[in-house]
Amino acid sequence: MEFNSSNETQMLSRMATGDGHGENSAYFEGWKAYEDNPFDLSKNRRGVIQMGLAENRLCFDLIEEWVVKNPKASICTPQGSEDFKEIAIFQDYHGLPEFRNAVAKFMGKVRGERVTFDPDRIVMSGGATGAVEILAFCLADPGDAFLVPTPYYPAFDRDWGWRTGAKLYPVICDSSNDFKITRAALEAAYNKAQTENIRVKGVLLNNPSNPLGTVLDRDTLRDILRFINDKNIHIVCDEIYASTVFSQPEFVSIAEIIQEAGDNNNRNLVHIVYSLSKDMGFPGFRVGIVYSYNDAVVRCARKMSSFGLVSTQTQHLMAAMLSDERFVDRFIQESAERLGRRHGAFTRGLAQVGIGTLKSNAGLFLWMDLRRLLREPTFEAELELWRIIVHDVKLNVSPGCSFHCAEPGWFRVCFANMDDDTVRVALKRIRAFVLQRKGGHKQCRGRALQISTSFSRIMLDDFLMSPHSPASAKSPMVQATN
Amino acid sequence: MEFNSSNETQMLSRMATGDGHGENSAYFEGWKAYEDNPFDLSKNRRGVIQMGLAENRLCFDLIEEWVVKNPKASICTPQGSEDFKEIAIFQDYHGLPEFRNAVAKFMGKVRGERVTFDPDRIVMSGGATGAVEILAFCLADPGDAFLVPTPYYPAFDRDWGWRTGAKLYPVICDSSNDFKITRAALEAAYNKAQTENIRVKGVLLNNPSNPLGTVLDRDTLRDILRFINDKNIHIVCDEIYASTVFSQPEFVSIAEIIQEAGDNNNRNLVHIVYSLSKDMGFPGFRVGIVYSYNDAVVRCARKMSSFGLVSTQTQHLMAAMLSDERFVDRFIQESAERLGRRHGAFTRGLAQVGIGTLKSNAGLFLWMDLRRLLREPTFEAELELWRIIVHDVKLNVSPGCSFHCAEPGWFRVCFANMDDDTVRVALKRIRAFVLQRKGGHKQCRGRALQISTSFSRIMLDDFLMSPHSPASAKSPMVQATN
Repeated sequence: MEFNSSNETQMLSRMATGDGHGENSAYFEGWKAYEDNPFDLSKNRRGVIQMGLAENRLCFDLIEEWVVKNPKASICTPQGSEDFKEIAIFQDYHGLPEFRNAVAKFMGKVRGERVTFDPDRIVMSGGATGAVEILAFCLADPGDAFLVPTPYYPAFDRDWGWRTGAKLYPVICDSSNDFKITRAALEAAYNKAQTENIRVKGVLLNNPSNPLGTVLDRDTLRDILRFINDKNIHIVCDEIYASTVFSQPEFVSIAEIIQEAGDNNNRNLVHIVYSLSKDMGFPGFRVGIVYSYNDAVVRCARKMSSFGLVSTQTQHLMAAMLSDERFVDRFIQESAERLGRRHGAFTRGLAQVGIGTLKSNAGLFLWMDLRRLLREPTFEAELELWRIIVHDVKLNVSPGCSFHCAEPGWFRVCFANMDDDTVRVALKRIRAFVLQRKGGHKQCRGRALQISTSFSRIMLDDFLMSPHSPASAKSPMVQATN
Repeated sequence: MEFNSSNETQMLSRMATGDGHGENSAYFEGWKAYEDNPFDLSKNRRGVIQMGLAENRLCFDLIEEWVVKNPKASICTPQGSEDFKEIAIFQDYHGLPEFRNAVAKFMGKVRGERVTFDPDRIVMSGGATGAVEILAFCLADPGDAFLVPTPYYPAFDRDWGWRTGAKLYPVICDSSNDFKITRAALEAAYNKAQTENIRVKGVLLNNPSNPLGTVLDRDTLRDILRFINDKNIHIVCDEIYASTVFSQPEFVSIAEIIQEAGDNNNRNLVHIVYSLSKDMGFPGFRVGIVYSYNDAVVRCARKMSSFGLVSTQTQHLMAAMLSDERFVDRFIQESAERLGRRHGAFTRGLAQVGIGTLKSNAGLFLWMDLRRLLREPTFEAELELWRIIVHDVKLNVSPGCSFHCAEPGWFRVCFANMDDDTVRVALKRIRAFVLQRKGGHKQCRGRALQISTSFSRIMLDDFLMSPHSPASAKSPMVQATN
């Protein structure tokens, strides 16, 4: 017997042979460019700087200090190892009670303690990724759609729909009103879906918004709640950036709005996604949470959590860390301050060369407006510009089209996943590019690619000593090879 | 506006409102009985003893000793905390390279190093639960079936089919040949499925077998491999009990069989499920592994692993522990010896009152033959007997019907999740019950329930001093309240 080993995709499922995962989107192309040639301050100063990753690296000094001071919190220290056995063997999908209690308390804290969460409604999942999928499985049959305002997190398509067969249907928002979500836009999307015979089962929100870095105000949230109640459809609020709000207006959770709405709202329709990946900066720990006000969803989600439970080693550590109120208070405050400073440095640095950003007060990123640099107002031109930024300027920012933005020329720029020196290099590269581009554009309109190729050679000569550079020649780390 | 909050299941998915999860099976009823009244040697000596949980608690002294001696292995010790940041932030779905390397090496070790595993084919998942589901998503479209020999692990129904829509189709095995899997049985199931218009896409095996505690011999594995190649269908081998084999014959992995088969086998059809929940005894850590010889499956499974990645805190610890070869060698040997001793004590204790068990040499359980105690050879009688054992004898063993066994009267008894004193109590209860039952049966055939209710009152008077009891009155822990 002989077999053709090249037939690897024969006999696989449609899911395995299809492209529903979406990893081939532009968003991921940038990641690959970074992975092939990652920037390193000391070892690879010509590499691509990763600005496509919404990581929060700014407060690990506080975390590490806490960890060393709290050896009982770990099952791997002489002080904590006697708990190793019971923790390692624990596999109840309700989770460690102390973990659920601590997470519920923490969720209240990052919402200003204006609302409380019931530990019995805390359901674990493998990150927010798993939480979003679990809710899709619970709330939508294959083909059913949830409305989602644009621009939105690219991996929602994978998380919400890849394995569930559920759909997302866009609610078009744009810069004319700073990408605000209006009742009119929701109604328009709902009606359009109806005419296409698509059953709309709910709304999926991300608040604070990735990629916008904005928070939804109370009135908007009230409008949306009225909308879903009027239509008798669900709302899923992904609030994983709740604690990244660094200035006014404060973050308002859907939990607050349903509290004030009282009986004028059907709580069975309301579900929250949370995680410790952004607010604490622990994406590796895979702590995702489904919080539902619907008992049947809590029960079903808990059963589904078997596919992505949080490691009890991690539950145990998080239980101790998050229930240390003094530490948590200090961490939340300090983290917001550091994010605010970083955000300020970035927006000012961009403004100096005339680059605008959407006014924002949350998140680990900026929504950068490069519309004026587009050859023409199309997504083709956006991707053309983006490829230059990734491959020549060597910054892995993310193009708006990968967020399903309806308007070309916007880019998401992450700023909290790097140290101050890398920020300086990144800002210098962007500014140099923009100045060069403006000049080049005038001379040679429509020939973007030609201009870009000369960029890497001339950027340093021209701009290293630029008076606009926040680093200029002061830092010995900023070398001519950046 | 007012809302009827009792309508919680309105507008949910069919999955959320259906019973595809199967948690209401008899298997789970026993767990609930235990949870309502758990046995505790010092605090609740009249409680239900948990013998339905295939946990491996016998070697935690070795683990705890290793953990304390290796502080660098943890990110929560002064020696290891400098790695905290990079570990907590790491979210690449390929996993930490050192983790994949260590797992690949460990997988070879528990298979006697007769076969090697490629770290690049190691895909993480949320326990074996997640691994089985990922393979179902990759290999089967909704409605497609995999053949599975009976009796089999009850939660396969949930893991394989609940969210994927894939089916399991039974291959009937029974005690006439010690539940061996034959080509004839496979062909019969395959043909029967065809006549029912069910598309058979593969075979799902569990080797060593839960609940049988047996290993598949080389010839059987060769037959099965020929079968799946003849039919051009997949094989998924769940080998999560690989390291629980405590005596001859040794464990043979499907990996060995395809190695010897060479080109006479299509490797693209072969996939392995592994985990550290049983072999190491860490179910809480949720370390599941998909290992496929099919590149397309590796790629797709890795994308799906985003829904259930292993916490990097746990990856980091496991990487250090499993790459300590001296420790691993000692652990594997010691664990097998302790399991063998426990298995021997249990089988001997049962044999003394004439209770037979299927001859086995692996696993964390016995397959106990109580056919002679059935009122009649039906599953109704099996469940009747089982309810007496759970509620009156207060042992949460698992009835064969919950494992889809084709023959009534078999029960799975877990023996590695308790300490020696609890074993003595459990054995005493079983033996007392069987002796009582045999006597009662003669006097009062067919009135099992009446007999059972008197059991708890008389068992201690009659049997505490029984010469058959391994504990008799020697242990101060074995009190009259057991």
